[in-house]
Amino acid sequence: MRILVLGGDGYLGWPTAMQLSQRGHDVAVIDNMARRAWDHEFGAESLVPICSLQERIAVWEAVSGKHIVAHVGDLTDYTFLEPVIKEFQPEAIVHYGEQRAAPYSMIDRRHAVFTQVNNIVGNLNVLYAMADHVPDCHLVKLGTMGEYGTPNIDIEEGFITITHKGRTDTLPYPKQPGSFYHLSKVHDSHNIMFCCKIWGIRATDLNQGVVYGVDTEEIVQDERLRTRFDYDGVFGTVLNRFLVQAVAGMPLTVYGEGGQTRGFLDVRDTLACVELALLNPAEKGEYRVFNQFTEQFSVLDLANSVKEVGKEFGLNVTINNLPNPRVEKEAHYYNAANTHLIDLGLQPHYLNDTLLESVLRIVQRYQGHIKESLILPSVDWRSTVNQPAPDVEVTLEEQQVGAK
Amino acid sequence: MRILVLGGDGYLGWPTAMQLSQRGHDVAVIDNMARRAWDHEFGAESLVPICSLQERIAVWEAVSGKHIVAHVGDLTDYTFLEPVIKEFQPEAIVHYGEQRAAPYSMIDRRHAVFTQVNNIVGNLNVLYAMADHVPDCHLVKLGTMGEYGTPNIDIEEGFITITHKGRTDTLPYPKQPGSFYHLSKVHDSHNIMFCCKIWGIRATDLNQGVVYGVDTEEIVQDERLRTRFDYDGVFGTVLNRFLVQAVAGMPLTVYGEGGQTRGFLDVRDTLACVELALLNPAEKGEYRVFNQFTEQFSVLDLANSVKEVGKEFGLNVTINNLPNPRVEKEAHYYNAANTHLIDLGLQPHYLNDTLLESVLRIVQRYQGHIKESLILPSVDWRSTVNQPAPDVEVTLEEQQVGAK
Repeated sequence: MRILVLGGDGYLGWPTAMQLSQRGHDVAVIDNMARRAWDHEFGAESLVPICSLQERIAVWEAVSGKHIVAHVGDLTDYTFLEPVIKEFQPEAIVHYGEQRAAPYSMIDRRHAVFTQVNNIVGNLNVLYAMADHVPDCHLVKLGTMGEYGTPNIDIEEGFITITHKGRTDTLPYPKQPGSFYHLSKVHDSHNIMFCCKIWGIRATDLNQGVVYGVDTEEIVQDERLRTRFDYDGVFGTVLNRFLVQAVAGMPLTVYGEGGQTRGFLDVRDTLACVELALLNPAEKGEYRVFNQFTEQFSVLDLANSVKEVGKEFGLNVTINNLPNPRVEKEAHYYNAANTHLIDLGLQPHYLNDTLLESVLRIVQRYQGHIKESLILPSVDWRSTVNQPAPDVEVTLEEQQVGAK
Repeated sequence: MRILVLGGDGYLGWPTAMQLSQRGHDVAVIDNMARRAWDHEFGAESLVPICSLQERIAVWEAVSGKHIVAHVGDLTDYTFLEPVIKEFQPEAIVHYGEQRAAPYSMIDRRHAVFTQVNNIVGNLNVLYAMADHVPDCHLVKLGTMGEYGTPNIDIEEGFITITHKGRTDTLPYPKQPGSFYHLSKVHDSHNIMFCCKIWGIRATDLNQGVVYGVDTEEIVQDERLRTRFDYDGVFGTVLNRFLVQAVAGMPLTVYGEGGQTRGFLDVRDTLACVELALLNPAEKGEYRVFNQFTEQFSVLDLANSVKEVGKEFGLNVTINNLPNPRVEKEAHYYNAANTHLIDLGLQPHYLNDTLLESVLRIVQRYQGHIKESLILPSVDWRSTVNQPAPDVEVTLEEQQVGAK
């Protein structure tokens, strides 16, 4: 299958590209290197050193004998995107190519506007290019479980059947996203659903939980193939942050009560889910949603797991409840469906001590790279002006959508 | 009350500004003149001649002795918007300042991207300026009944109480918008709801039906105060189109079966609803939704009403069912709640022969201005490239969000 991976230089995009290449697909990637640039904005970097995209592709070719084609450019620039899609004629597009950090989107007005414009326009451009040049292509789009928020009823997979005043219909599941980033994914979902309806596009929206883990079958073949490991207050996810804090001898920072419950999954399962979606494509005109996570944990559950594993490593791990920088419920009902991918054959890798230990070992190996000043939360949802990098005023240039 | 009207030069913005001024409020308007520019794009114009904003304001001052302040600039330009809000310190903002035509948003990729970026960024800028400079200000935002689509259950006002698997919650009503324009309003609604939650903004989202009518208490005082009357295939609404076709001796063009049912209201009721919302503001942090229409009609109902009234004027009106340029259900259940505004005291002006006759007389008066070539639908939802103005290729420059 000819598969185009958007955001193919990122945490998930790069391992996905390699795995699909390994499976014999003809893989091309698009990336604008934005994720690397955002690190420069804060003086942050991946804890695990990563090679350039060009080096990664060269190493992958040496290791596997397979070639991945890279196109460096921006999805919001249609004069870049259109010819790539027109010439490559992908049969499937895996779309990771968005700004994906909630705190980044909450820094200030410019970052909020950037996040929504970047994500919405890039996604619209992909949809138009598909309609015009590859109308049978299958879009596999990364959404987020965060689109649903924390309703007091069970979360279903994209749609819910409602009986109301004696009538029944199956409608899009109500969305209550919790950041300008999560909002951008809700906007994308609505746009994609509409394009499936009017143009007959086929699309799978993967509402993904929080991903953890650093190893995949391909990555372990050569450490120059490693993918990024983010732990800073802006791009780091909760489990990574806890593991880094444990190694650095800092208290694990739980936001508020820590009762926030979310879906989680192993990076290997992300890759498996994407492949399952690709091998079982949506019908022509179909917009379907899969909830992509394997287990639910509260933040406090995770902190306690890290504390326990830390003990085995001789680490004295403490937990510190910080005032919550986010506006969210800290104790709530949470029960989300995730059977669609299981029904397609997903064999989950559940979170266990072995996984935590292996990641902890990686963190210990790169302990010298930890920048403690970047770990604590620096973006407050209640403030319209945040300064995530101490001593640096961020003056991001907003997207010049039309200038290209 | 100090009230800022965004889009104060438009079909509804101008009559709203005058009425609020007449009622003794301190009114300022913002407009970027975009609506007038879009006419130039197609060689279209309001059937009823309208004065410039500057002339309107001068005439209004001569007629009423009251002054309206105008700021000409773009909501997507924060360097323009922020100082206006900071200095005027509005107690309420009425936000009509968006691209509001579904066909315009469906012309091609550039118009779709423009519509979503323009509407979303302008609205985000308003929200940030409110949070920073007038945190107690009440936002009265024009949404559309089209956000709901045509579900097979009753449409409620913004939220619906769902009992599911033994648990109950009140959640945002599921949205199924039918164009990139309608989608932009859904995106706005989600963004506003979130800002109310995180910053304590107070907001009323008016999901408005299709507005008809040309006269208000203020407009009838001097014809130089008239507001625009659109009948072309891009910006015209269905009732206006039918009245113009009746006068021009053209068949009334019903799209498909004509069973499409929508909410409608008189322009005088729009003004009354906005005033009711202003006088009964949302609570701090409250996001509320009012469905703003007074009656439901199918397209065929309207065509038949115009046919009947036409007879009285000696017009031989015929009806022609065209292939539907839109992707929508043409026969469907439709029952939408609209009690919130009635409960606040709205006294509706229902559509009757007298109203139709009075508008028909206006159309007859300006019959010589009718451009028949602009009336038929020129934008097909199934096509990604439309050419709404015969013999003119539209090359809209996309919004340069960041360049300002």
